[in-house]
Amino acid sequence: MLLRTVLEQFKSEPVNYITSPDNRSLLYLQYILPNMNFPALLNDNLLKVATGQKPSRIPVWIMRQAGRYLPEFREIRKDHDFFELVNDPELASEVTIQPIKRYDLDAAIIFSDILVIPTAVGLEVKMEPGIGPVLPNPLKTPDDVSKLDFDADVNEKMKGTLAAITLTRHKLNGKVPLLGFVGAPWTLMSYMIEGGGSRTLTKSKSWLYKYPKESTELLSKLTDIVIRYLVAQVIAGAQMVQVFESHADLLGPELFKKFCIPTLSRIRNEVVASLKAKNIEPVPMTIFAKGAHYALNEISQLNYNVVGLDWTVDPKVGRNLVAKDTVLQGNLDPCALFGDKDSLEKNTRNMIDSFGVHNYICNLGHGIYPETPTESVQTIIDTVHSYKL
Amino acid sequence: MLLRTVLEQFKSEPVNYITSPDNRSLLYLQYILPNMNFPALLNDNLLKVATGQKPSRIPVWIMRQAGRYLPEFREIRKDHDFFELVNDPELASEVTIQPIKRYDLDAAIIFSDILVIPTAVGLEVKMEPGIGPVLPNPLKTPDDVSKLDFDADVNEKMKGTLAAITLTRHKLNGKVPLLGFVGAPWTLMSYMIEGGGSRTLTKSKSWLYKYPKESTELLSKLTDIVIRYLVAQVIAGAQMVQVFESHADLLGPELFKKFCIPTLSRIRNEVVASLKAKNIEPVPMTIFAKGAHYALNEISQLNYNVVGLDWTVDPKVGRNLVAKDTVLQGNLDPCALFGDKDSLEKNTRNMIDSFGVHNYICNLGHGIYPETPTESVQTIIDTVHSYKL
Repeated sequence: MLLRTVLEQFKSEPVNYITSPDNRSLLYLQYILPNMNFPALLNDNLLKVATGQKPSRIPVWIMRQAGRYLPEFREIRKDHDFFELVNDPELASEVTIQPIKRYDLDAAIIFSDILVIPTAVGLEVKMEPGIGPVLPNPLKTPDDVSKLDFDADVNEKMKGTLAAITLTRHKLNGKVPLLGFVGAPWTLMSYMIEGGGSRTLTKSKSWLYKYPKESTELLSKLTDIVIRYLVAQVIAGAQMVQVFESHADLLGPELFKKFCIPTLSRIRNEVVASLKAKNIEPVPMTIFAKGAHYALNEISQLNYNVVGLDWTVDPKVGRNLVAKDTVLQGNLDPCALFGDKDSLEKNTRNMIDSFGVHNYICNLGHGIYPETPTESVQTIIDTVHSYKL
Repeated sequence: MLLRTVLEQFKSEPVNYITSPDNRSLLYLQYILPNMNFPALLNDNLLKVATGQKPSRIPVWIMRQAGRYLPEFREIRKDHDFFELVNDPELASEVTIQPIKRYDLDAAIIFSDILVIPTAVGLEVKMEPGIGPVLPNPLKTPDDVSKLDFDADVNEKMKGTLAAITLTRHKLNGKVPLLGFVGAPWTLMSYMIEGGGSRTLTKSKSWLYKYPKESTELLSKLTDIVIRYLVAQVIAGAQMVQVFESHADLLGPELFKKFCIPTLSRIRNEVVASLKAKNIEPVPMTIFAKGAHYALNEISQLNYNVVGLDWTVDPKVGRNLVAKDTVLQGNLDPCALFGDKDSLEKNTRNMIDSFGVHNYICNLGHGIYPETPTESVQTIIDTVHSYKL
């Protein structure tokens, strides 16, 4: 009842509850009250591991678990554009919960996309079938940056995803925790310059070499909005958040240290500080920098609760590189899910044995592929849950 | 005179000098005699470093140095299809020498392509402008492998590149050594299954998980022809050869150890053995597995003379990972060449200082991009040659 009222209000009226302190009643109506009424969490294994406590089993979730490999997702998707799904709280919430209904997972992750931030600051983003995200008017020179609005109100621009988070928390009924997420500044910057996916990121990496000062400024502006958006997700009900630095693989130690580490450090510190200033308990945070094998030690010292590994890093090597007692997440090769059941079980066991069962969250090393057989996800979950702690 | 006769014969008649031992006179005419008459090598810095001797300066060459960033290359290329250039000894030789005329480099590398082997075994390969290589009829299932001819006579199929090597050796007149190269089996297999470039290699990696036995067989067949082709390159005049495992970045430690290490080991050992059996002095060999940060130690133990590093590996970290006294090659980020002269000089110096001046060959960490300013190559060469040994 109350939730419906909140959602109606959400749709009809942009809100400024953080930027306009006079709007406290709306803030209360929209977030705080529903938050207070969120159902109690029944499966806290993920949050326990992330905060250094002992879970009752190894938690497992799958990156991009709400996605095209599920027939029930494709069924909804066929009638809706990708970003229509993202921006509709009811639909986004429904597809978020689909994998939770099908599998005994230990977390849900809100259905959304890292490119909602480029959209929010004023760059059009389309999802082209068979191609992926396309930004028809990418940044060509640093002068183009001034055309964008980095002061955009995330509560207004991301109201669809924020409302979906609140709604999903209620729908989940405490079954598993709900994760929020965001694209990291460099990953967003590279999409905004390349205009879509790229195998080399030549254009955006060239900015780092040609325009180091302007690149730092752009990254700083993106960091600001990333922080505001993560805070808003937590207020909306996200119980843990993951930062995706998906394009670290084409950088290297120098560029990553110069252009990414400062932004990732600020995100962690300022999200925590901002939440504390609002008297809101900070949530655990995961950093997943795909391909950043060269910077795992530095990443593990940024005070995130969890560090994600991609599949090119041997778990034992990863454990040796990161700071002591770092909680690691990962890292099965998504292609391993195309193998038969026996080989997948064996690969999953090898991975878990190599990570060790403690300080560990089971996941893939990157998002699941659309062509993946659904039974493979079942095999991974059964295998990891067969381990006794 | 003699060379011209040989080349004419080469064009008019397929040869089988390795597979048909009765054809010794042709072998003599075609390779041995011109080889004996090759001009003396004036700049042996690269070969010295590769064989553990002290050079007079740090040698430098640039991966894909004969390519589209050079206006003189684009001038020739506009009148000829890519593979027309590859297969015409005169043209291939001309573009091979273009960067040697322009810059004070320490090696030439024959202009060719790793995909000549898929072509030789019977898969069509086209170079599509703006896209890259396309194989219109890729392998769909392991059954398709039987349609290919892995016993193809490399001397007949690759006669263009082999003749180009012999011709270029003469044209270089001993100025710098001439490198040959080949694509490594996994990299070739992935192209043959994906049908072109791919950001995920999902199809070909799926073979490794779904059809491990058939994948091993295909890789073994590719290894056989790779070995024969490298031997033929050395006989034709290549003074050093590089094996490109360009698609290692999407594997991981397990897959690489299982599917790549055995092929790379065989290539090194059997090329040496085959040359020795023919009373030909083996040449130094380089292995460059792009993205194989997770296997550098294993790679350094395969007895190649040189190990190439991509730019994601910190040179100091690389030095610590590889076996003692390994000669390393690399590894400037090709995007660094888009920076201004000062920053490029600084990045080049940082790299050299980090590698150390001994047991080191200066290069990029991957092929130079077509949009690169030609002055940037000059800057790198000037910087590296300013070091005193």
